[in-house]
Amino acid sequence: MPTRLSNYFLRTLREDPAEAEVVGHKLLVRAGYIRRQAPGVFAWLPLGLRVKARIEAVIRQEMTNAGAHEVHFPALLPREPYELSGRWDEYGDNLFRLQDRKGSDMLLAPTHEEVFTLLVKDLYSSYKDLPLAIYQIQDKYRDEARPRAGLLRGREFTMKDAYTFDYTDAGLDVSYQKQRDAYERIFTRLGLEYVIVQADAGAMGGSRSEEFLHPTPVGEDTFVRSAGGYAANVEAFHTIAPEPVPFDSLPDAVVHDTPDTPTIQTLVDKANAEHPRADGREWTAADTLKNVVLALVGLDGSRELVIVGLPGDREVDPKRAEVAFGPAEVEAATEADFAKHPGLVKGYIGPWSTDGSVLGEESATGIRYLLDPRVSVGTEWITGANAEGKHVFGLVAGRDFEGDGTVEVANVREGDPAPDGSGPVELARGMEIGHVFQLGRKYAEVLGLKVLDENGKLVTVTMGSYGIGVTRILAIIAELNNDEKGLIWPPAVAPFDVHVIATGKDPAILEVAEGVVAGLEESGQDVLFDDRPKLSPGVKFADAELIGVPTIVIVGRDAVEGFAELWDRRSGERTKVAIADLADALKA
Amino acid sequence: MPTRLSNYFLRTLREDPAEAEVVGHKLLVRAGYIRRQAPGVFAWLPLGLRVKARIEAVIRQEMTNAGAHEVHFPALLPREPYELSGRWDEYGDNLFRLQDRKGSDMLLAPTHEEVFTLLVKDLYSSYKDLPLAIYQIQDKYRDEARPRAGLLRGREFTMKDAYTFDYTDAGLDVSYQKQRDAYERIFTRLGLEYVIVQADAGAMGGSRSEEFLHPTPVGEDTFVRSAGGYAANVEAFHTIAPEPVPFDSLPDAVVHDTPDTPTIQTLVDKANAEHPRADGREWTAADTLKNVVLALVGLDGSRELVIVGLPGDREVDPKRAEVAFGPAEVEAATEADFAKHPGLVKGYIGPWSTDGSVLGEESATGIRYLLDPRVSVGTEWITGANAEGKHVFGLVAGRDFEGDGTVEVANVREGDPAPDGSGPVELARGMEIGHVFQLGRKYAEVLGLKVLDENGKLVTVTMGSYGIGVTRILAIIAELNNDEKGLIWPPAVAPFDVHVIATGKDPAILEVAEGVVAGLEESGQDVLFDDRPKLSPGVKFADAELIGVPTIVIVGRDAVEGFAELWDRRSGERTKVAIADLADALKA
Repeated sequence: MPTRLSNYFLRTLREDPAEAEVVGHKLLVRAGYIRRQAPGVFAWLPLGLRVKARIEAVIRQEMTNAGAHEVHFPALLPREPYELSGRWDEYGDNLFRLQDRKGSDMLLAPTHEEVFTLLVKDLYSSYKDLPLAIYQIQDKYRDEARPRAGLLRGREFTMKDAYTFDYTDAGLDVSYQKQRDAYERIFTRLGLEYVIVQADAGAMGGSRSEEFLHPTPVGEDTFVRSAGGYAANVEAFHTIAPEPVPFDSLPDAVVHDTPDTPTIQTLVDKANAEHPRADGREWTAADTLKNVVLALVGLDGSRELVIVGLPGDREVDPKRAEVAFGPAEVEAATEADFAKHPGLVKGYIGPWSTDGSVLGEESATGIRYLLDPRVSVGTEWITGANAEGKHVFGLVAGRDFEGDGTVEVANVREGDPAPDGSGPVELARGMEIGHVFQLGRKYAEVLGLKVLDENGKLVTVTMGSYGIGVTRILAIIAELNNDEKGLIWPPAVAPFDVHVIATGKDPAILEVAEGVVAGLEESGQDVLFDDRPKLSPGVKFADAELIGVPTIVIVGRDAVEGFAELWDRRSGERTKVAIADLADALKA
Repeated sequence: MPTRLSNYFLRTLREDPAEAEVVGHKLLVRAGYIRRQAPGVFAWLPLGLRVKARIEAVIRQEMTNAGAHEVHFPALLPREPYELSGRWDEYGDNLFRLQDRKGSDMLLAPTHEEVFTLLVKDLYSSYKDLPLAIYQIQDKYRDEARPRAGLLRGREFTMKDAYTFDYTDAGLDVSYQKQRDAYERIFTRLGLEYVIVQADAGAMGGSRSEEFLHPTPVGEDTFVRSAGGYAANVEAFHTIAPEPVPFDSLPDAVVHDTPDTPTIQTLVDKANAEHPRADGREWTAADTLKNVVLALVGLDGSRELVIVGLPGDREVDPKRAEVAFGPAEVEAATEADFAKHPGLVKGYIGPWSTDGSVLGEESATGIRYLLDPRVSVGTEWITGANAEGKHVFGLVAGRDFEGDGTVEVANVREGDPAPDGSGPVELARGMEIGHVFQLGRKYAEVLGLKVLDENGKLVTVTMGSYGIGVTRILAIIAELNNDEKGLIWPPAVAPFDVHVIATGKDPAILEVAEGVVAGLEESGQDVLFDDRPKLSPGVKFADAELIGVPTIVIVGRDAVEGFAELWDRRSGERTKVAIADLADALKA
């Protein structure tokens, strides 16, 4: 049975909805696919449900091909498992928490590692049961601080989350690769170009992690890649530390008066003007050591100051800092923080003063001091002398000062060398479309998932976790496939295969159109039939362009002579085709 | 591809799970269909998901046949629409409420009338758009006080909820009938016997309502039916009020001393012994008027006393009282309540005393007094004289006392006359499997859903609401289809069509079995294949009986001669069949 527009729950809008920020979202609302219910929470209209179902079908097929079994967990879960894993607290405000009528704490699950682990613990007990891959397609909840861009970052969203279980590291590698391969097939089938980038696995407690990003200039994520094949998101990028340099022959550090140098650039200018380098090379910002005071706010509300030393031509990248210091939140130090540490001379902070070490756990201030990897042994720096209006020149790392460790928070720049030696990186932007993690044994350990191995010994299971945001992918596809007239669905996910339009009020035309629709349905096409008798062709064409079914068939004046028009929504090309040849033409 | 038990996420249990109360639930857990996550909250394992998907497919097909369009709403919704309809409060503790990070009140929806109404208001504006039927299959939440019987009464459950929209009462009747017909087809296809009973529409604010009940002695609902075709649940049963009797010739009421009559029976005995009726007929409990003091607790916590007068041979039925007084909750009056009303003489409460009227809004106590319909004008009663140790005889309704109205809270009994004159009713028990409501204009009025009619006049839309509990139906089917060995699925909802068992360790048998499975799959059967190499036939048979696929094929020693055994799970009958004839035998 075709779906008839004369009797379909649909109303297209000519105006952009007020709440929509991005083009894909505007079109999904205007073309009658979704409607907003609350910030980041949407209802699905019939057209939208169809596209969602087609994406889910592709994912299910490839999960089955990868040997994964489908299960389904509730969204509403008890607190306990998430308490054991620490995520009840770690999720902070992002978790929807509630109490039932008896006062028991519950949550709306943002992801399900804990309960999948417990389920396998409940059912399985032997290495013979493994490997195991199970997945669900399910509605998840995350109380985003700023839900935005429609389905791209919602508070309720549909995810395919899969989990693998192995009892050896080698087994996990195989399971991980299978899921990774399935993801490649899924995105290829959905027509979504992707780049696989190394990602930080820290937050999930794991050892290896990769993101599938769709490269696009409007992407919200930044990633780096080299011509030699390296790709990583900025959080996962590792800086190559320079080899240590012997410093026996380096001159002693000298303190200079440097009043009126509020910025790195004014300091560099003064240095070049008043204290030029002996060899004539100009000082640059990269020769200065900038010491940035950060406050780390723990889950328990505790507040710790930490100072990071990095070259003056770099900034602290908030996302890299989040990874480096998570789960604590990173804030800039406040006046109140400084007031508690009179030993820090604002604007002139440095690791050293004429009185000795200033920064570091063993120092006068006792504040932890972490260094960018570029501040390696034997490197010389211009940095604050920890005295008003004074900087020290030629301060040598490893000789004059030491950090309490290194930290990767400096921003990554075009031209930085890829850590695998594959050459300089370029920066690009992308949208996350999938994420695969080797979780390792974190959840199994905490929740006690062990099996007997070949020798009858209890061993802790090692896990993987693999996610695709179904509704997010739908939004991305809409965002990438449209023009000023409306949506243009790739055939693999289109709500219908063909959109047949009967034009005019001539009953003869409508009769031919009915025959065309019946013939197309018989040949296996899913047809949306615009049989509305009272609308002008212009209105029908505009709706067809807005809705975005990839192939449109116009049955009009030539119908009685046996001809229709085949209209390719993407190219805009219209071709006159004999109705008898329509089914074949559509298959071509 | 067949599903292979050697590699399937399944573990059957030999022991009943501790938390299971009813047989169907025990078997669903033991056979690996579901696992409990929290009270009334379950995870679905692969077998369970399959059965659920088949039930949903039947429902979807019949909804499409009824012209309904599928949509999908979020479970997480804002408070406002439910505030406007009054249900934010009315649901009381049954509603899961929560706040988001910004402090906005939200809820997990127990049903979606409000937001469907608003969606249609958003999209439609003309009578030409109607009639409309839209539905969803979606996970709902209700914080039951006592979640029990597994999926039968869960706190998270899957429902098909449909809503119809019309602009005339006649249109609503047609839409209602279409949904009702679809329900009949659905239950017939699912093999679920049903009775359609009149139900109370009050709680949903509507005008007509029917329940589909599966009649079974273990049902949790009581309904009444007459041989003449009347059927209703007890909440909806209406008592025929006797015709008024002229009371001019009735004698005056007389007060008698009736000490030591703590029960109706002792009062009746004393009356017969000391004050026999003139005409010799014995007094019975039906001649006494019992006055029961109830406390109505409002949504706002208010507490109002009300007294109901009903024949002494009847009890207050809590479910009927709930309907009569809802949304207020009904409690028995406490000592504290009595203490506030010294005018009530406990054990001897009556509407009248020698000092005048005692009960009723205009009376000495001021307490609202509601009468059973049987207490009609001209009926004579023995009732409390509102004085310690005294009853009044021959008190005539309409002459000596009046109520503030009638109320239907007395229990219904076998033999009571059906209100439609179709004869005496019998009581039976059943399980609710569906519910259809004519909501009328309640939600449309509150939420402002109007359309322009043929004359360009704005008219308020009239609605219907139609629900089937998908997971509840699954539980009922499991409850009804099993034996001491395990589940026995009706073919329409079985997780697989055939369960093929290869017995023994002979590779030749396994090879034949592989061929059998491939052949069955080719003939369109969905096959579960027990290919586990190391298990005994006994273990495999026990698992097959527990899992409950209706047809089992055993490929054993005769396999190499070309024979298999066809095992009907329900009858237990086993037949030797030539493997070449298997596909045909299965179709038969």
